[in-house]
Amino acid sequence: MSRLIECVPNFSEGRRPEVLEEITRAIRQIEGVSLLDASRDESHNRSVVTFAGGPEAVVRAAMAAVGRALELIDMEQQTGAHPRIGSVDVIPFVPLGDTTMAEAVDLARRFGEQVARTFQLPVYLYGEAALRPDRRRLADVRRGQYEGLKEELGVNPDRAPDFGPPRLHPRGGAVAVGARKPLIAFNLNLATSDLEIAQHIAEQIRASSGGLPAVQAMGVLVAVPDGRQLAQVSMNLVDWEQTGIPKVVHEVRRLAHQAGTDIDHAELIGLAPAGALLDVAADALNLRGFSPDQALELRLARER
Amino acid sequence: MSRLIECVPNFSEGRRPEVLEEITRAIRQIEGVSLLDASRDESHNRSVVTFAGGPEAVVRAAMAAVGRALELIDMEQQTGAHPRIGSVDVIPFVPLGDTTMAEAVDLARRFGEQVARTFQLPVYLYGEAALRPDRRRLADVRRGQYEGLKEELGVNPDRAPDFGPPRLHPRGGAVAVGARKPLIAFNLNLATSDLEIAQHIAEQIRASSGGLPAVQAMGVLVAVPDGRQLAQVSMNLVDWEQTGIPKVVHEVRRLAHQAGTDIDHAELIGLAPAGALLDVAADALNLRGFSPDQALELRLARER
Repeated sequence: MSRLIECVPNFSEGRRPEVLEEITRAIRQIEGVSLLDASRDESHNRSVVTFAGGPEAVVRAAMAAVGRALELIDMEQQTGAHPRIGSVDVIPFVPLGDTTMAEAVDLARRFGEQVARTFQLPVYLYGEAALRPDRRRLADVRRGQYEGLKEELGVNPDRAPDFGPPRLHPRGGAVAVGARKPLIAFNLNLATSDLEIAQHIAEQIRASSGGLPAVQAMGVLVAVPDGRQLAQVSMNLVDWEQTGIPKVVHEVRRLAHQAGTDIDHAELIGLAPAGALLDVAADALNLRGFSPDQALELRLARER
Repeated sequence: MSRLIECVPNFSEGRRPEVLEEITRAIRQIEGVSLLDASRDESHNRSVVTFAGGPEAVVRAAMAAVGRALELIDMEQQTGAHPRIGSVDVIPFVPLGDTTMAEAVDLARRFGEQVARTFQLPVYLYGEAALRPDRRRLADVRRGQYEGLKEELGVNPDRAPDFGPPRLHPRGGAVAVGARKPLIAFNLNLATSDLEIAQHIAEQIRASSGGLPAVQAMGVLVAVPDGRQLAQVSMNLVDWEQTGIPKVVHEVRRLAHQAGTDIDHAELIGLAPAGALLDVAADALNLRGFSPDQALELRLARER
C-alpha cells in the first residue's frame, strides 16, 4: 500500500453522460491507476470521479482527465447551481496508506505547475497545498465563481493564479488544485420529520459554530425509500482521525434524545477509509486491544 | 485480490523461539507470500503461522515450512497439552478474495499429494478437502494422537493415510491437510466472575448443542489486565457469513441480561476477514445500503 494517492477531480458537467464516460475512459487507460467511483449530478450539473494509484500514475491520469475535460466542457456554455471556476473545477490529492500529507502536498504543487504549463490554465493551490493562507479554503479561491474571476483576473493582482497565465483559459476557465485528508460524507436520519430538530442538532455539532472539530453539518429533510420524510443531519467529516463516526453518532444520539427523538438509521455516501469504519466496530463491541491490522485484507494489502 | 489463498500451519513446538524463527524465515524467503502472523504458545507447546499469497507461492512456502519443521521438531521428544499427530500437525488452506472453496480444496489435495511424496509423510485430508466423510472433523483424524496413530498405522486399514506411506515419518509423524473457511476467534467478557453464567451462555449458543449454526463456544474464567477475574464466553465462528459477530453479540447480550449481567468488553484474537468487522459497523449504525466495497482500501485492493 506504500505511496498510494487518491485523486478526486470535480467536473462542471453532469448532464451529458458521454462526457463523464470519455473522462473515465481517459483515466482508465493509464496503467497503475484504479478507477474507484464516478458519479454524475444532473441538478448541480457536476460530476465527481475518484481514482487511486502510485503518485506518477495518478498524475498521468489526472493530466489525461484534464485534457479530455478541456476538449468537452466549454465554460462559456455551462450553467449550474454548484459554485465553480472551470471545466475541471477542483482537483484534490489525498494521501492513502503510508503516503504522508507532505508527499500529497508536493505532488499537488508539481501537478499544478505541470497542468498550468501544458494547458495554459490558471491554477490556484488550495487546502494543505495552498501557498497563501487566504487560499486554504476552497470557498475563498472560488469567490465570484467563473464569471467573477473572469472580470478580476489580470485586473486585481490579489487574484493572480499560483501557476499559469493571469487570464482564464478560453473554454476551461481556471482550476483549484489541492491536497486534503480523506473526507467522509455521512448522514444520520432521525426518527422524526421535524426539520428544525435536525437543523438544531447540526448547529450544535458543526465545527463552525463551536461544536465538534473537523465536522461540517446541516439539517435537511429527505424522502427515504420506504416513503417516509425524515429529518436528516447531513455531515462531512473532514478529519476522521480527529472526530470519527462513533463520536458524531454518540453526540447526535444524545441531542436527539434531548429533543424527544432518536436516530433511525445512517447512510454512508461514497467511499470511506476502512479505519474509520473499523473504529465503529471497535466502539460498538467495546473491543479491547484491537488494531485495524487485524482485518485480514487490510493487513495483506499493507504487506504486499 | 484474485486467486489469494491463506495458509495457517500449526507446529508442535512452542517452547523454542528459534524453531519458529527458522520456520518463518523459510516462509518469508518465498517470493509472492506475505507472512501475516506467527504466535507461539509455551503451555500448549505449539505455534501457529499465518501467511497468504497466490496459490503457487503459498504451496512453495508451505513445502519449505514443512521441510524446516521436519528437521527441527522430533515427535519422539515432543510433549504438550494440545492434541497433535505430527511435527507439522495441521495445514489448512483458506480461500481469500475471489478464490472459491473448490479452488482451496483442489490446492489442499495437490499439496497433500506433493508433501507426502517429497517427505514420505502420511497425509490425512480433512475439512472441505476430506475424501471420506469420517475425516471431515479434525478431531476424528487426530483420534489417539501421535502415540495412538503410531500403534494403529499399518495395522488398522481404517487409519490408512490418503497419501504417503502407511507408517509414521520417523521424526515428523503425520500431518492433516485441509481446506476451510476463515475462522474468527472472538471472546465476550461478561461483567461478572460467575463462571457458570458463561458456561450456560456458551451451551445455549453453540451449534453442537443446538444453538447458533457454525458457532463453537465454551465458558472460561479469565484474568483481564485491570486485575479483575471475568467470566468469558470464548468462541470460534467457523462460518461468519452464516453466523456473524453481530448475531452472537446480540444473543450473548440477551442471555447475559437474563442472567442479571451484561457484556463488559470483547476481544478479537488474531486476524478476521474485514467483511466480518464491517458487518459489525453496519449493524451498530443501522447503515442502509452499505457495501463493504465502500471501504476505500478494500475497494482498491479488489481493483488492483
